[in-house]
Amino acid sequence: MDVAIVMGSISDWPNIKQTASLLEKFEVSFSTHVISAHRMPDQLQEFGKQAKHEQYKVIIAAAGGAAHLPGMLAANTTLPVVGIPVKTKALNGMDSLLSMVQMPSGVPVATVAIGDAGAKNAAILAAQVIALNNPKVEKSLEKFRNNQTQEAINSNDKLE
Amino acid sequence: MDVAIVMGSISDWPNIKQTASLLEKFEVSFSTHVISAHRMPDQLQEFGKQAKHEQYKVIIAAAGGAAHLPGMLAANTTLPVVGIPVKTKALNGMDSLLSMVQMPSGVPVATVAIGDAGAKNAAILAAQVIALNNPKVEKSLEKFRNNQTQEAINSNDKLE
Amino acid sequence: MDVAIVMGSISDWPNIKQTASLLEKFEVSFSTHVISAHRMPDQLQEFGKQAKHEQYKVIIAAAGGAAHLPGMLAANTTLPVVGIPVKTKALNGMDSLLSMVQMPSGVPVATVAIGDAGAKNAAILAAQVIALNNPKVEKSLEKFRNNQTQEAINSNDKLE
Amino acid sequence: MDVAIVMGSISDWPNIKQTASLLEKFEVSFSTHVISAHRMPDQLQEFGKQAKHEQYKVIIAAAGGAAHLPGMLAANTTLPVVGIPVKTKALNGMDSLLSMVQMPSGVPVATVAIGDAGAKNAAILAAQVIALNNPKVEKSLEKFRNNQTQEAINSNDKLE
Amino acid sequence: MDVAIVMGSISDWPNIKQTASLLEKFEVSFSTHVISAHRMPDQLQEFGKQAKHEQYKVIIAAAGGAAHLPGMLAANTTLPVVGIPVKTKALNGMDSLLSMVQMPSGVPVATVAIGDAGAKNAAILAAQVIALNNPKVEKSLEKFRNNQTQEAINSNDKLE
Amino acid sequence: MDVAIVMGSISDWPNIKQTASLLEKFEVSFSTHVISAHRMPDQLQEFGKQAKHEQYKVIIAAAGGAAHLPGMLAANTTLPVVGIPVKTKALNGMDSLLSMVQMPSGVPVATVAIGDAGAKNAAILAAQVIALNNPKVEKSLEKFRNNQTQEAINSNDKLE
Amino acid sequence: MDVAIVMGSISDWPNIKQTASLLEKFEVSFSTHVISAHRMPDQLQEFGKQAKHEQYKVIIAAAGGAAHLPGMLAANTTLPVVGIPVKTKALNGMDSLLSMVQMPSGVPVATVAIGDAGAKNAAILAAQVIALNNPKVEKSLEKFRNNQTQEAINSNDKLE
Amino acid sequence: MDVAIVMGSISDWPNIKQTASLLEKFEVSFSTHVISAHRMPDQLQEFGKQAKHEQYKVIIAAAGGAAHLPGMLAANTTLPVVGIPVKTKALNGMDSLLSMVQMPSGVPVATVAIGDAGAKNAAILAAQVIALNNPKVEKSLEKFRNNQTQEAINSNDKLE
Repeated sequence: MDVAIVMGSISDWPNIKQTASLLEKFEVSFSTHVISAHRMPDQLQEFGKQAKHEQYKVIIAAAGGAAHLPGMLAANTTLPVVGIPVKTKALNGMDSLLSMVQMPSGVPVATVAIGDAGAKNAAILAAQVIALNNPKVEKSLEKFRNNQTQEAINSNDKLE
Repeated sequence: MDVAIVMGSISDWPNIKQTASLLEKFEVSFSTHVISAHRMPDQLQEFGKQAKHEQYKVIIAAAGGAAHLPGMLAANTTLPVVGIPVKTKALNGMDSLLSMVQMPSGVPVATVAIGDAGAKNAAILAAQVIALNNPKVEKSLEKFRNNQTQEAINSNDKLE
Repeated sequence: MDVAIVMGSISDWPNIKQTASLLEKFEVSFSTHVISAHRMPDQLQEFGKQAKHEQYKVIIAAAGGAAHLPGMLAANTTLPVVGIPVKTKALNGMDSLLSMVQMPSGVPVATVAIGDAGAKNAAILAAQVIALNNPKVEKSLEKFRNNQTQEAINSNDKLE
Repeated sequence: MDVAIVMGSISDWPNIKQTASLLEKFEVSFSTHVISAHRMPDQLQEFGKQAKHEQYKVIIAAAGGAAHLPGMLAANTTLPVVGIPVKTKALNGMDSLLSMVQMPSGVPVATVAIGDAGAKNAAILAAQVIALNNPKVEKSLEKFRNNQTQEAINSNDKLE
Repeated sequence: MDVAIVMGSISDWPNIKQTASLLEKFEVSFSTHVISAHRMPDQLQEFGKQAKHEQYKVIIAAAGGAAHLPGMLAANTTLPVVGIPVKTKALNGMDSLLSMVQMPSGVPVATVAIGDAGAKNAAILAAQVIALNNPKVEKSLEKFRNNQTQEAINSNDKLE
Repeated sequence: MDVAIVMGSISDWPNIKQTASLLEKFEVSFSTHVISAHRMPDQLQEFGKQAKHEQYKVIIAAAGGAAHLPGMLAANTTLPVVGIPVKTKALNGMDSLLSMVQMPSGVPVATVAIGDAGAKNAAILAAQVIALNNPKVEKSLEKFRNNQTQEAINSNDKLE
Repeated sequence: MDVAIVMGSISDWPNIKQTASLLEKFEVSFSTHVISAHRMPDQLQEFGKQAKHEQYKVIIAAAGGAAHLPGMLAANTTLPVVGIPVKTKALNGMDSLLSMVQMPSGVPVATVAIGDAGAKNAAILAAQVIALNNPKVEKSLEKFRNNQTQEAINSNDKLE
Repeated sequence: MDVAIVMGSISDWPNIKQTASLLEKFEVSFSTHVISAHRMPDQLQEFGKQAKHEQYKVIIAAAGGAAHLPGMLAANTTLPVVGIPVKTKALNGMDSLLSMVQMPSGVPVATVAIGDAGAKNAAILAAQVIALNNPKVEKSLEKFRNNQTQEAINSNDKLE
C-alpha cells in the first residue's frame, strides 16, 4: 500500500471517503484505519512506528477538535504526514486546524483545508508525492488536473 | 511524589517554575520533567502508563502551539491531568488553549488560563485535588486563599 | 454526595444530563442544581460556602455566554471546580470558554471542551478525582476506558 | 458619592485613573475601590447590595480576563453598571470583553471599549447618566464635548 | 417619551420587539424608529440633535455588521446611548459588536450582548437609568428581578 | 483636487502620510483633512455632501476601532470611498477592518489592508480610478508597477 | 463592456447574480465569467492582461476560501479590482475576507462585505467609479440612493 | 536541485534562511528565489510551469498577508508545494495561514506552522518527501530526529 488513511473516529468517514475515492481515481493503493489518538494510544504508536516497514509512503490523518492524531503519528515516523482538520460543531474546525498546523519545529504535519476541500486535497497531495516516483500516478494527476481545468472552462462557457 | 509537572520544552520552565513554587508553598511533593510529545513520544507513553504506579495523584502538563502533551498523557492514564496552555509567539496561546481544551469526549484535560495565571492556577487546582485527602494541604490552601483575600483587601485600603 | 452538578439555567439540562448519565455509570453519587450566577447570587454564594460541609468533593458547573457560575463557585470554596462551557447562539461557546478558562491567578476553574464533549468529560474528570481515593470508581473508570478503546478498535475492524 | 469606581485589582489603577480624572473634570463625585470578584466575593456581594443605600447612582467596574466583577455587581443591584474590559497579556482583552458584554438576559452590563478608550468612556457614560438630573454635570459634559470637537477642528487646521 | 428605540433596519424588529415588550412591562414610555445610518444620515443626525429636546432620557440603538447607528447617534447627543449588536449572517454579530463597543474615547456606546439577550438587556439597562429618578420604574425593576430570581429558583426545584 | 484624504485623528498621520507620498508620486492632486466621525459629525456630513461639488473624484478615509468615518462619508456621497483600517492597540485593527468592510448593502466602502500596506494601497487604488480618465496618471501607475516589479526581480538577483 | 464580473466557481453565481442585477439597474454594461484562480491560472493571467485592452473599466472578482482570484487579477492589470469575499462553509468567509483584503502594498483589492451585502455593494462601487465619467450612470446611482433612502423612511413610517 | 525555496519578498529571508540551513544539514540540494506573486506574476507562472522540467521535487513557498504565492505555484505545477505562513504585523500570520491552508479542492498547499517553527518544518517535510527515494536523506532525517530526541532527553536530565 502506498498510502494509509487514518481517521480519529468512524464518524469522520463520510468526510474522509472523499479522500479514498480520489486515491482510487489516481490508482494509488491505500488502506483505511480508525485510530483514535486518545482512545487507542498504543495502536497509534505502533502504527506510526510500523508505517515505514509496511512500505507506506504517505500517511493521511483526519481528526477534529484537539486533533492530536496526525501530530502523534508524525512523532512516530519520518514518513510525510498529511493532516485533514475535520469541521467541528462548536468551533467549525478552527480548533482542529490550529491543533494540526501549529506543530513545533522538528515534527511537521502537512495541513490542508478544513472539511471537504481538505479531504480531497489530502488525496491529491499524497498523489503528488507518490507521483515523484510513479509515472502512472503522475499521468493520472495531470489528467485529473486537466479535467478539472476543462470543467471550470466549461462552466464558464455555460455561464456566458 | 503527589504531583508530576511535565513541560513540553525546557524553554517553558520560566513560566512553569511558578507552578513549582506554589506547590512548594502548599507543601505538596512534586517532580519536574521535560517530555516533548513530538520528540519523546516513547517517554511520554511510558510516563503516562507508569504515573499511577509511581503514586502520582495529579499530572500537570504545560505545552504551547499544537500542544499535544497533556492530551496524550491523559490518553495513557486515568489520573487527572491539568493542562497549562503556554503563550505562543504568533497566536498568543490561543492555539495552545484550543489544542488542550477541545479534547474529544472520553479523555478530559482540566485546562487553566494561558500563561502565568494558568501556571499558578494549575498548582492550586492540583493542591485542591490533593487536599481532598490531605488535611495539611487543605489547611495550606485555605491559608493561601485567606492571605490573597487579605492582600486584595489591603490593596483596597491603600487605594482609598 | 460526591459531586454537585450545577447549571446556570434549566435550559442547559439537555446538554448536562450527559454528565449525570456518566456519573451514574461510574457509580459516583451526585446531586443536580440550577443556580443562575446572575439571578441567584445569594444562593450561589451560599452553595459555594456550604459545598465542603455538604461533603461534596468536586463541583461541576455549566454555563454559557459571560459564564460566571464556575468562577464564582470557585471563589467561594477550595473544592476543585470543573467548568463546562455551554455552546451559545451567536459565538458558539467561544464566549463561554474564555469567561471560564481565563480565570485570574488564585482561583482556578478546570475547564473542559465546549458542549457535548465537555459535558461528558466533566463527569470523567470528576470521577478521576474521586477515584484517587475510591477503588470502586477507579475500577469503573478503567473499565469505561477499556470499553471505549475496544469500541474504537471495533469500529476500525468494521471499517477495514 | 454619585459614582463608585471598582477595579478587580490594584494593577488596573494606571488604566482606571483616567476614569477618575474625567469624573473630576465633570465634577461628578466618586469613590474608588479594589474588589476582586474571585478573592473578595463577600465584599463584592456586600458592595453590590449596599450600593443603592450608599446613594451611588452608577457603578463603574473594570476587570481583565474572566472578568466577572461587573457582572456580579450587576447581579447584586439594580443600579446601572458600566464595565471596562481591561487589556490582557495573552488575548489583548478579547477575553475581558466577551466575559462582560455577553451577559445573559436579565442582568445587563453597559460595556465600553477595551483599555484606555474604555476607561475614559466609562466616565463619560456615567456622567451622561448623572447629567439627566444634574444640570451642572450636563453643562460640564457639553463643554467637554464642545472642547473635544474644537480640538479635533484645530488639529485639522494644523494639518492643512 | 423616556426612551427612543432606534433600529438600523425594519428587519431588526423581530429581535428588537423584545426590547419594546420589556419597556412596556417596566411602564417606561418609549417610541420606535427605523433610522438607517447609511441610508438616512440626515435623519440620523437630526434625530440625535433633537433627542434631548424631545425629552428622551435614553436612546437604544440596534444595528448589524458595520453597525454605525449607535455610535453616530452618540456623536450627536450627550444622552446615554445603549447599543444592541444584531446577529449577522456571516460573522454572527462579532462585526456588530466590535463596531459598537470599540468607540474611540470621547463618545461612548453602552454595549450589551449580541442578539436576543442584548435586546432584552438594553431595555433593562435603560430602565435602570430611568429608575434613578422614577420610583415607579425602580419598583417595577425590582419586582422583575425578584421574579426572575424566583423563576430560576423554581426551575431548580423542578430539576431536583 | 482629485482626492480627499480624510483621517479620524491627527494621530493617524504617521500612517497616512504614506498615502499622501504615493499620490504625489502619481501626480494626483489631493488635500488632507482631520474629520473625527464622533467629534465632528457636522463637519463629516458637510464634507460628504460637498465632496462632489468640490470636484473630488475619490475619498480616502482612515480610521481605527469602531471606524465609522469611511462608512459615514460614503453615506453622504456617491463618490467612491476607500477605507484604510488603522491598526489598534488592543485588537490590532481587526475591529477597524470589520467596522469598515462589513457595510450593509447599499453603501459600499472599498476596504484595503490594515495599517501600512493599506495606507499605500489606498493611494494606488485611488490612482487606478483616476487613471481611467487621466492618461498621465495611468502612465505614472504603470511606471510605478514596472518599477516595483523590477525591484522585486532585483532582490531575487541579489538573493541568488 | 464597462465591467467584468469574474467568479472563482460557477457555484458562486447564486450569490453573484445580485451583482449583475444591480449593474443592469444602473445601466452599466458588463460581462460575466468563471475563472478559477487555481484551475485556470493561464486564463486568469490572460484575462488580467487583456482587461484594459478589452476596454473594461472595473473588474469585480468573487471568490471563497484562499480567495486568490481578485488579488491575482489585480497583479495583472492596473484597472481597479473589487473583491467580494464569498461566505464559506467552515469559516463563514473570514478566510475569504483576509485572503482578499490583506493584499501587500503595491497591489490593492477594493474589498467589500462578505456574502450578499458584498455582492450588491461591489456593483454599487463599480457604478460609483463608472459614474465619475458617465452622467447617466451617476443619475441612476443617485436615483437608486434616493429610492433606498425613501424605502428606509417608509419602513420607519410603517413601524410607527 | 531537489527543492526550490521561494519567498514572496526579500524581507522574508531572515525567517526563511532557517529553511535553507536545515536543508543543507539534510544534504538536500536547493535553490532560493524571490518571486512576489503580486509584483512578478509572470515569473511566478513561468516558475511554476518550469519547476518539473527543472527537476525540482518539492517547492517550498513562504509568504505573508494575502499569501497567494504557494497557492498560485501549486496552480501551475503538480509538484507538491509546501506553504510557510509568514508572521504579519497586524494579524500575526493568521491572515497568511488562512490564505494558504484554505485552498479549494483540486489544488492543495501543504501548510506548516506560522513563522519560525514553520520555516524549519517546511525543510523537514520536504526532506521527508525526498527521503522516500533517497536513502542518504532518509538517514540524515533519522539522525536529525534521534538528535532532537536526545537533546530533549538531555534537557530533562538537566532539569531534574
